[in-house]
Amino acid sequence: MAVLFDKVAIIGIGHIGSSLARVIKRDGLAGRLVTLDSNSLHRAKALELGIVDAATDDVAEAVGDADLVVLATPVGTYADLAAAIAPHLKQGAIVSDVGSVKMAVLRDVGPHLPEGVSFVPGHPIAGTEHSGPTAGFAELFQGRWCILTPPGGTAQAAVDKVRAMWESAGSTVEIMEAAHHDRVLAITSHLPHLIAYTIVGTATDLETTLQQEVIKFSASGFRDFTRIAASDPVMWRDIFLNNREAVLEVLQRFTEDLTALQRAIRWGEGDKLEELFSRTRAIRRSIIDAKQA
Amino acid sequence: MAVLFDKVAIIGIGHIGSSLARVIKRDGLAGRLVTLDSNSLHRAKALELGIVDAATDDVAEAVGDADLVVLATPVGTYADLAAAIAPHLKQGAIVSDVGSVKMAVLRDVGPHLPEGVSFVPGHPIAGTEHSGPTAGFAELFQGRWCILTPPGGTAQAAVDKVRAMWESAGSTVEIMEAAHHDRVLAITSHLPHLIAYTIVGTATDLETTLQQEVIKFSASGFRDFTRIAASDPVMWRDIFLNNREAVLEVLQRFTEDLTALQRAIRWGEGDKLEELFSRTRAIRRSIIDAKQA
Repeated sequence: MAVLFDKVAIIGIGHIGSSLARVIKRDGLAGRLVTLDSNSLHRAKALELGIVDAATDDVAEAVGDADLVVLATPVGTYADLAAAIAPHLKQGAIVSDVGSVKMAVLRDVGPHLPEGVSFVPGHPIAGTEHSGPTAGFAELFQGRWCILTPPGGTAQAAVDKVRAMWESAGSTVEIMEAAHHDRVLAITSHLPHLIAYTIVGTATDLETTLQQEVIKFSASGFRDFTRIAASDPVMWRDIFLNNREAVLEVLQRFTEDLTALQRAIRWGEGDKLEELFSRTRAIRRSIIDAKQA
Repeated sequence: MAVLFDKVAIIGIGHIGSSLARVIKRDGLAGRLVTLDSNSLHRAKALELGIVDAATDDVAEAVGDADLVVLATPVGTYADLAAAIAPHLKQGAIVSDVGSVKMAVLRDVGPHLPEGVSFVPGHPIAGTEHSGPTAGFAELFQGRWCILTPPGGTAQAAVDKVRAMWESAGSTVEIMEAAHHDRVLAITSHLPHLIAYTIVGTATDLETTLQQEVIKFSASGFRDFTRIAASDPVMWRDIFLNNREAVLEVLQRFTEDLTALQRAIRWGEGDKLEELFSRTRAIRRSIIDAKQA
């Protein structure tokens, strides 16, 4: 792969940021790769791993002269970050991100960016429950989707360059409206995480002996939820706070459906249970067919 | 391993029944292994796979002379099955099962069994989302728990023999009160399945284009639920109908917790979200430490 950018700045060298850094290094996508991170341990680790050329907590040093700046911190930090980096962005620079919500990113980052800077928000649909620069790996994005939500009027050349970077990472890129992204992800990602956090939280409130048995016999279903519920707390706090409407709407649907199921159990309506349990099997097959299983 | 039983009858040669049959064959635990199954395709497949010595739909032929009879059909069939097999059980026979609920099994099977027959209900905490005799494999129970809930007064020799069979399968056996089993499993297994069925059901009710996108982007969390929600519909219908009180009680706790979380999102209470999301991480670590991850 040819060099796409003379200089790239990744803000936040955590799980996703460090995975992207590894891709950029592996494929030689940047002449120079710098990370801005307030955590000195993460900066030291990134340098030790050799996944960046420089690591700093100085905004001007990081984003000055950068052709691409990627925000990879929890989305709650974006507004302040955008205000801080804006004065140092060069003409023609591209600003992108990896956040799991996109309407709030347009709202928080967009207004700060000067004329002549392109904004290409992105969301790689990938990740594990682990955090920090050591948890990253270049293959994380391989075979996964990456959604870009450039606002109307964004320069096509900027979108193409960000697309090329994610394609080099092995992802398939999809362009989408930010509002639509947030609605789809509320269902496929945010609600599942909310439910998983809740059920694991319910278990943590049990008396100690029962809780130990829950851990012991977790392989019967519970375990799968704990993996999701081990995801980064601050990142997920910010996702729920910043996709509130879409999450609350889909949560309302879910609650109605759960109440109907609860009622069917209470009244012994086996046919209703079986009908639903048969219907859900088909979705699994579709996911296997779509090679996302 | 030495022969534990001269003749074993497995009733229902599905995912679990056929996996147990493979263990019994592999380890030479039975002089003769017969399956009773009303599905002629499953009988033919079991014979073709060589995992049983005989397959029949004749109750007397299957359970007559059997030293061990294992019920491995959905628990909703147990009452009728117990009534049908009871007249053919020999003195000294052991009746066991693999059902996911245990109070209902005591209720439905116990009263039918004649004097001189031992009853050792069991529940191997293992399984995949697949069904049928081809989906079974002998290693399914390796490293997993198997819970036995013998009623008071059950002959110790009978419990020991069933225990030896599951230990041969690679499981660790735990003896438990049936009521306690049902409460623990309501949390670790039944509620997670109910939630997974609900969330996947909610997704199936979306308009077609949105549903296709949910499938496309399912790797972001939703996918993990679809695996659970692809489990056998009849088996799970029977579980919910037969562990109603414990499931409804834990569902009530879950709903309260979800409502609190919903409120925190609506009112933007980030600290409450972060506190819960941090707490749930610890449970995951406990499961990894307990080698159940």
